[in-house]
Amino acid sequence: MSTIDADSCKVDVMDTIESNNYNIYFQNSLSELASFVEKGGYSRFFILTDENTAKYCLPLLRERLGDPDNFDIIEVNAGEESKDIDFCIGVWKMLIDFGADRQSLLINLGGGVISDLGGFAASTFKRGIDFVHVPTTLLSQVDASVGGKTGIDINSIKNIIGTFTQPKAVFIEGEFLKTLPSRQILSGTAEMLKHGLICDAEYWNQLKQSDLTTPADWMVYRSVAIKNAVVLEDPNEKNIRKSLNFGHTIGHAVETYSLINDKDSLSHGEAIAIGMICEAYLSHKKSSLSAEELTEITQVLMNLYPRYNLKTADNTTLIDYMLKDKKNQNGKINCTLLSKIGQFNIDNICTEEELIEGLNYYANL
Amino acid sequence: MSTIDADSCKVDVMDTIESNNYNIYFQNSLSELASFVEKGGYSRFFILTDENTAKYCLPLLRERLGDPDNFDIIEVNAGEESKDIDFCIGVWKMLIDFGADRQSLLINLGGGVISDLGGFAASTFKRGIDFVHVPTTLLSQVDASVGGKTGIDINSIKNIIGTFTQPKAVFIEGEFLKTLPSRQILSGTAEMLKHGLICDAEYWNQLKQSDLTTPADWMVYRSVAIKNAVVLEDPNEKNIRKSLNFGHTIGHAVETYSLINDKDSLSHGEAIAIGMICEAYLSHKKSSLSAEELTEITQVLMNLYPRYNLKTADNTTLIDYMLKDKKNQNGKINCTLLSKIGQFNIDNICTEEELIEGLNYYANL
Repeated sequence: MSTIDADSCKVDVMDTIESNNYNIYFQNSLSELASFVEKGGYSRFFILTDENTAKYCLPLLRERLGDPDNFDIIEVNAGEESKDIDFCIGVWKMLIDFGADRQSLLINLGGGVISDLGGFAASTFKRGIDFVHVPTTLLSQVDASVGGKTGIDINSIKNIIGTFTQPKAVFIEGEFLKTLPSRQILSGTAEMLKHGLICDAEYWNQLKQSDLTTPADWMVYRSVAIKNAVVLEDPNEKNIRKSLNFGHTIGHAVETYSLINDKDSLSHGEAIAIGMICEAYLSHKKSSLSAEELTEITQVLMNLYPRYNLKTADNTTLIDYMLKDKKNQNGKINCTLLSKIGQFNIDNICTEEELIEGLNYYANL
Repeated sequence: MSTIDADSCKVDVMDTIESNNYNIYFQNSLSELASFVEKGGYSRFFILTDENTAKYCLPLLRERLGDPDNFDIIEVNAGEESKDIDFCIGVWKMLIDFGADRQSLLINLGGGVISDLGGFAASTFKRGIDFVHVPTTLLSQVDASVGGKTGIDINSIKNIIGTFTQPKAVFIEGEFLKTLPSRQILSGTAEMLKHGLICDAEYWNQLKQSDLTTPADWMVYRSVAIKNAVVLEDPNEKNIRKSLNFGHTIGHAVETYSLINDKDSLSHGEAIAIGMICEAYLSHKKSSLSAEELTEITQVLMNLYPRYNLKTADNTTLIDYMLKDKKNQNGKINCTLLSKIGQFNIDNICTEEELIEGLNYYANL
């Protein structure tokens, strides 16, 4: 088991963070974006957006970017459905129709759906054009925009197709969070709590005492710094990057299930919170997480996120989704667990019975 | 303008060629493949094949690979149509259904369609699984299987979507060529002639005096060595790799046109031969290729390939295809030309009038 030096992620000033050959900007981010575009010598640029970000965030960008002849807008529907391969084909066709060439730039303005979809579309269009992320949700600021994973869905299997391709820059602008409903904020908070749980107990303690419906700038910064430290050490997910999968083996399955079955489906964070509770239970059962720590994690997450009705009858379906998880090897379901709060433990094979026990722990709370 | 050291590609013994972190095997290739698979520690492997290679080539592979429980076959239709994104989605879905995980290997058994499609499908499945090429046509042996380009088509625009991803190995087996009709052999010969034209006048002279319907093993080896030398120096096509595009700006447009309009469409080599004649004309007009050299190139290619009826009325459509070419910048059509036989000249912007003049040169032969 490797560990992450979380102390190195505590910074007083929110300086630009250097990632894998690109910068993550926190101060005057939209001015930095305008300057990046100007200096980049691109033939054209394109902004990928959804109906929400087109309304609330695009005007702010337009103000900075000037000349409207120089770019085109590609708008998709808001929501995970837009990550389906059919929408990706739509983005590729629009890039063709707009005459995008290899010197074009794609600006992904939106949440994780936009950065995952836009990153994949750009990384494969004409064998790869440049792209940058302007994440507009808390979740995408602290998670999807950093680390160079791109991905789209087929048959609702999340990120089954994708590449590891780094953006040329990420621009994080706190202003965008002000327009978000608290349910969307809390979707991002789940990943921040995960950052504390896997490698920074002090951060976890600070978060659990804070009002997480309005997270402070320094929290966003600290989460990005933690995620960046992890992915820099292991960009292609061979070892310690797997720490970020805590809560995601079960969480992704629940998310897929809800996406298919519920009219008002779970947000990513809501599903991951469920996953973290179930996997904290497995951490207690199979690793060294104490009963007190399990109770603490359960209480913090249950207080923040609505209870979801996990029916026993659906366990087979959930296991089936887990079996299709990318993290598996030889058909065995693989989890990242906690040995204690602030310390992770990768590559734990869990049996179907154990996973069902984890699901039942949540269902019986 | 850069040059390639063609002398370094003359080798007496057909040793294994080292490419970009992978080997290209020429001797006992199928045994080498069996040994590669055995040593690789893969969880499962999959063979991508088409109806022709399933019939003529797969039995040879089965003999060597043993245990049929260990792999699954994914078969697509023969022909360029299988490179359409819809077929790629089909391959991804079969990999999902067969339970492929990140430790799976995809073996691409076939011509350029199979290696381009399989390479792309593998390089993006679960963000990338290993793949190897077993090229079964002359064209794919001397061209598609070497260099790490993968690609699929959208709306018949060739390779508009793809990645630069290296295979883990390439296995070249001369036995496969014996089952090929001469038209398919000649499709590969066009690329070999191109290798001579761009950087090896001696090789061109040898080829033009040979019976190219049954090319010798050393010719295949020499072409692979030349292509490998080029792509090793410039894997991402920033400069000298563009030399390989000679004949392809016009050739690809003619190929797309024929694919859409002709019942019995042109082979890749037939289209590229037309492209090389047109672009040799442009090389004479815009670069320093002599009138005698233009005549020589025209005669050699016209003797080998059937005349195609290029109608003046279709020039607008052809130019339209050229405008969508990946090699363009700022909407300007970019060609690689020859300064003499054995020497290339990249990044020549050609006007629509010049390109039409090139097309007319061919049409009036």
